Amino acid sequence: MMKPRSVAIIGASRDPAKVGNVILQNYIGAGYEGKLYPVNPNADEILGRKAYKTVLEIKDTIDLAVIAIPAPLVPKVLEQCGKAKVRSAVVVSGGFAEVGETELQEKITEIAKKYKIAMIGPNCLGVMDTRSKVDTLFLPMKKISRPKVGYVSFVSQSGAVGSTVLDVIAGEGFGLSKFVSYGNAAYLDETDILEYLMNDEETKVIVVYLEGIKRGKEFVELARKITKVKPVVVLKAGRTEAGTAAAHSHTAALAGNYAVQEAIFKQFGFTVASDLSELIYYAKIFASEVKPKGNRVAVITNGGGAGVVAADEIASSRYLKMAELSAGTKKSLRKVMPALVNMTDPLDLAGDADSRRYGDALNALGADPNIDMLMVIVLYQTPGADPAVTHEIVQKKITLNKPLLVVSVGTEYTHKQTRLLEDKNVPVYDSPISAVDALEALFEYAEYKSRH
Amino acid sequence: MMKPRSVAIIGASRDPAKVGNVILQNYIGAGYEGKLYPVNPNADEILGRKAYKTVLEIKDTIDLAVIAIPAPLVPKVLEQCGKAKVRSAVVVSGGFAEVGETELQEKITEIAKKYKIAMIGPNCLGVMDTRSKVDTLFLPMKKISRPKVGYVSFVSQSGAVGSTVLDVIAGEGFGLSKFVSYGNAAYLDETDILEYLMNDEETKVIVVYLEGIKRGKEFVELARKITKVKPVVVLKAGRTEAGTAAAHSHTAALAGNYAVQEAIFKQFGFTVASDLSELIYYAKIFASEVKPKGNRVAVITNGGGAGVVAADEIASSRYLKMAELSAGTKKSLRKVMPALVNMTDPLDLAGDADSRRYGDALNALGADPNIDMLMVIVLYQTPGADPAVTHEIVQKKITLNKPLLVVSVGTEYTHKQTRLLEDKNVPVYDSPISAVDALEALFEYAEYKSRH
Repeated sequence: MMKPRSVAIIGASRDPAKVGNVILQNYIGAGYEGKLYPVNPNADEILGRKAYKTVLEIKDTIDLAVIAIPAPLVPKVLEQCGKAKVRSAVVVSGGFAEVGETELQEKITEIAKKYKIAMIGPNCLGVMDTRSKVDTLFLPMKKISRPKVGYVSFVSQSGAVGSTVLDVIAGEGFGLSKFVSYGNAAYLDETDILEYLMNDEETKVIVVYLEGIKRGKEFVELARKITKVKPVVVLKAGRTEAGTAAAHSHTAALAGNYAVQEAIFKQFGFTVASDLSELIYYAKIFASEVKPKGNRVAVITNGGGAGVVAADEIASSRYLKMAELSAGTKKSLRKVMPALVNMTDPLDLAGDADSRRYGDALNALGADPNIDMLMVIVLYQTPGADPAVTHEIVQKKITLNKPLLVVSVGTEYTHKQTRLLEDKNVPVYDSPISAVDALEALFEYAEYKSRH
Repeated sequence: MMKPRSVAIIGASRDPAKVGNVILQNYIGAGYEGKLYPVNPNADEILGRKAYKTVLEIKDTIDLAVIAIPAPLVPKVLEQCGKAKVRSAVVVSGGFAEVGETELQEKITEIAKKYKIAMIGPNCLGVMDTRSKVDTLFLPMKKISRPKVGYVSFVSQSGAVGSTVLDVIAGEGFGLSKFVSYGNAAYLDETDILEYLMNDEETKVIVVYLEGIKRGKEFVELARKITKVKPVVVLKAGRTEAGTAAAHSHTAALAGNYAVQEAIFKQFGFTVASDLSELIYYAKIFASEVKPKGNRVAVITNGGGAGVVAADEIASSRYLKMAELSAGTKKSLRKVMPALVNMTDPLDLAGDADSRRYGDALNALGADPNIDMLMVIVLYQTPGADPAVTHEIVQKKITLNKPLLVVSVGTEYTHKQTRLLEDKNVPVYDSPISAVDALEALFEYAEYKSRH
């Protein structure tokens, strides 16, 4: 499914408003290099390509069938896929269990089982692989940016949540490996997909949005193993009765007891997010790939007030604490810093700090054995904070063997700089709160891994 | 100070790297229409304007003197201002109590007292008034966007926090009335400034970042009155020992006992933020100016998953709850919605929702007496969510007598739409969590006001 040599798009259409048209266009636009077969009983040619009446007409072996046709027609078409020995299928069509059509859904599950078709869906966006350029999403390119190639894989039961997070990931600048939106999970479910990603060498961080867990026992068995291999960030919807009811009406998911699930996640070292933005915060820090050796954080800032907020946040966090600068660091800083800079953590470089002062601070604190993680606050609104500061941070990040993140917020001028940082694998956060949450998650996971 | 007919810029300089040059340039660039007098003992002309050796040479009455010269020279110059009957002063220069120079600071306090000069600072950015175009900030225009004219006033002890929040406010699109960064508060302090803003008709929402409270008794007396007049959002740094220490080294503030302060804030109906981003979230919702009649929230969404997250967040909040759609609303919705839309809260309009479906939902839920507040989630990544949806929301907001906010997140396409919404006074949030926090603050303040 992820590396198909041939893809049939069933329901491909000449009408740009139809899902099947968007999917075909996206494949072409994304530069997929395998073979593409549009299937439509009422067309001979679609977007300049020969169209087939059914998959049975295609003389090639089909690795992946993307099915975007009205729900009642899906069983017949899936049966044809089975007969044509199609190896995998993504059923994007809605109109199954989520609207009470459970029998129709059971029917397609039976067909997938009978023919051993690895099936994702129905009622889903499907899959994306930034390397093979598989892209079954029916979202117009102009409305959603596609992320660059990377090592974070993202699994979302919900298509809309999935598309939003994809768009945000693209905007953040960290790379994606694979995306799977699996909807009603009539056949392959979250446990199957996570197991695949656990063993996937192109995936170093797994991020997952869940509405329900289908096979509890199997999921727990997998959970026990997966975090020993790579970090997993999870957002589980349905913590409350209202959320549970909403989840059921959305993908017919049985959300289950959240407290139990959360306890399981925590026991097995998952990083639990409670919001889409947290999901992104955590994904970013894990994607930057450096493990902390301890919990002592040093803050470098050109805004005293922002340093105070960060110190408060670190000191009141569960596991982190403010580092104490070593005597050697204080001594070497004293030599290069102006008199108004106090040798403390947070290290307030003052409102007129420039790249040289940032560079000196990064060097001294980077080398200090009393410091495990660095939070660098840059208020680019101040006169001295310019692209040279960005350059100093990027350079330091390359050689530094400690987690380093940046906190920065603003408009155009700032965005340009934070984008440069993100592109060079420096995660940027818009507030000390989210930055501290991220560092804490990184520390907790490192602790979990060292205990197991 | 806020509406001066004449401003003297002491330390105005021909060197673009100097603070005094930036301030003068900003005044000119912002279009200040009063009289501007550059003061510099070593220049005859600066930026095309006649320069004066001292304020005593100026034949006009000076309403405001902006002082940007090295700290040791400030007492002498302030004394001259006193003799010249200058009515107010902003001392931007640093180098006073925040670096241990308490005597120097006491000296300027005495001078300000003796001559009854309303003095802000030292060690501050000073003041901005979007209407009179007073702007003592020494921040280059290209690095920081200036907010549009509006009704939120923002007070920040810290200059860097102040400048960052200003930049973010400008990016968010809601309007600013006045900005005051008061630094070491050697003479006028937070209590004076808040009292002024309480009585200022151009201010409808006050947002304040505090590091310390100078006159506890007077502050409490003011606190008791101010929230009966208008909402106040406060971020108080120094909740922890680490933060307290950092605050002291920053503006020599004595942060005091946070628990006591927070209790005071809450007792008197302040909205307490714990982060700069929360400060913005709260400011936005209060700026949109509609009071809720109750705590029942309805969610409209085109992303089922996002609706689930929102429902969880509302149901687990302290004061809010999910609304139950009235029988009449269900009936009228049933007539216009496709079969796959369930008549529940959250109202999931499905991934193919267009402006018509949003319009119908907004009309029905807007009129429902069982609903007090509306959260409208728009995932602009989906095919049907286009500028027409934005238009529907903007139109509804004009006539609706309930709080309405939008939750939306994404990249370019989405940003364009959310900016249009913000410009039309519809607050936009990037996650259900922040949106729920904001609605809760709005509800709490409405409750406080109705009790007092």
